[in-house]
Amino acid sequence: MEKDTVLILSGGIDSTTLLYEYQDKIALAVSFHYGSNHNDKEIPFAEYHCNRLGIKHITIPLSFMKDYFQSSLLQGADAIPEGNYDDENMKSTVVPFRNGIMLAIAAGFAETNGLHRVMMANHSGDHAIYPDCRPKFVDAMGKAIEAGTYEGITLETPYTNLSKADIVKRGSSLGIDYTQTWSCYKGKEIHCGKCGTCRERKEAFALAKLADATQYEE
Amino acid sequence: MEKDTVLILSGGIDSTTLLYEYQDKIALAVSFHYGSNHNDKEIPFAEYHCNRLGIKHITIPLSFMKDYFQSSLLQGADAIPEGNYDDENMKSTVVPFRNGIMLAIAAGFAETNGLHRVMMANHSGDHAIYPDCRPKFVDAMGKAIEAGTYEGITLETPYTNLSKADIVKRGSSLGIDYTQTWSCYKGKEIHCGKCGTCRERKEAFALAKLADATQYEE
Repeated sequence: MEKDTVLILSGGIDSTTLLYEYQDKIALAVSFHYGSNHNDKEIPFAEYHCNRLGIKHITIPLSFMKDYFQSSLLQGADAIPEGNYDDENMKSTVVPFRNGIMLAIAAGFAETNGLHRVMMANHSGDHAIYPDCRPKFVDAMGKAIEAGTYEGITLETPYTNLSKADIVKRGSSLGIDYTQTWSCYKGKEIHCGKCGTCRERKEAFALAKLADATQYEE
Repeated sequence: MEKDTVLILSGGIDSTTLLYEYQDKIALAVSFHYGSNHNDKEIPFAEYHCNRLGIKHITIPLSFMKDYFQSSLLQGADAIPEGNYDDENMKSTVVPFRNGIMLAIAAGFAETNGLHRVMMANHSGDHAIYPDCRPKFVDAMGKAIEAGTYEGITLETPYTNLSKADIVKRGSSLGIDYTQTWSCYKGKEIHCGKCGTCRERKEAFALAKLADATQYEE
């Protein structure tokens, strides 16, 4: 099978699962260091899995986000709200148009490397709070990437209509060790267990009826 | 009039004209330093005009483009082809999906600053060679930005169907001093006069029947 795809890989559960599921198609995985609390925790996991699978991995620094963008995700652990992932207060963690920016850069990487496809692991649980995870955005962005590149590069997001529990089930059947992934927005030593992303992570394992080996603060 | 717009400003003729024409609406102008030969020549002009008009200006470094993207524009003056702007060999100067990347970042700046619109100065002469200047791309990217932001930020490109000669006419009637703009892709001391962008610049003044005060090497 031809390796023709650039994957946006954070080192969290969703994109790591996509990496394993499509490992035969992924030529390049790209992580973005935009200055969040948890980038330094998640990106080493992205690198770990790429090394394990023999897939080329690049980390792109986007320092302007930390310098200019408003988001609690860029303001240190204490700024992260506690609550459910789809609660209104999680809006403070949104980094403006982050997926648009990452997808555009990934499309540039695809074009410059003669690849034909970009993949991202947005899922249905993201839709409530994050506008740049919704199908309407993904459809339009895919058309923009196709029209704006010589090769007519396509965008695929196979998890758009899956829940995180579905993703965890899929990844477990692929043998992924999820202790080697990161979710917590606080980005401290271990997962806090209380922020929106930790709650979402716990809930995904519970709904999937799978053991959660993550070490939480409580 | 409310200032509600982020402009992508290179410091060339087209975006400088847009800056003057829409100065009452532009709250922020953003330049991108992606490591091209001519960035160091054009961005000071972008800054100059913003200072003159009292418009906030930011330069964003995108070092990954120079590090990873293939383009003669990123390889020094000697790599720039000579010929007409719409010649096939000008394709080597394309920076993959550059407008997609700059627009996505500009949309993030609009969202984070509570602004409502992004503007870019692509024009009809760009369509032949640059896919990310064509109406089909601009339409789809506008929809992606609108769907992917809370505020439903819009994209406007008033020069999409204008020629560069039309733009120069418009700017001259606004009193713009075009000697304070930069086009040449070689990025040397003065405009080379032979590369595609220099030829396009000369032709625009000639077709507009306006004097071209640009200093060319020959």
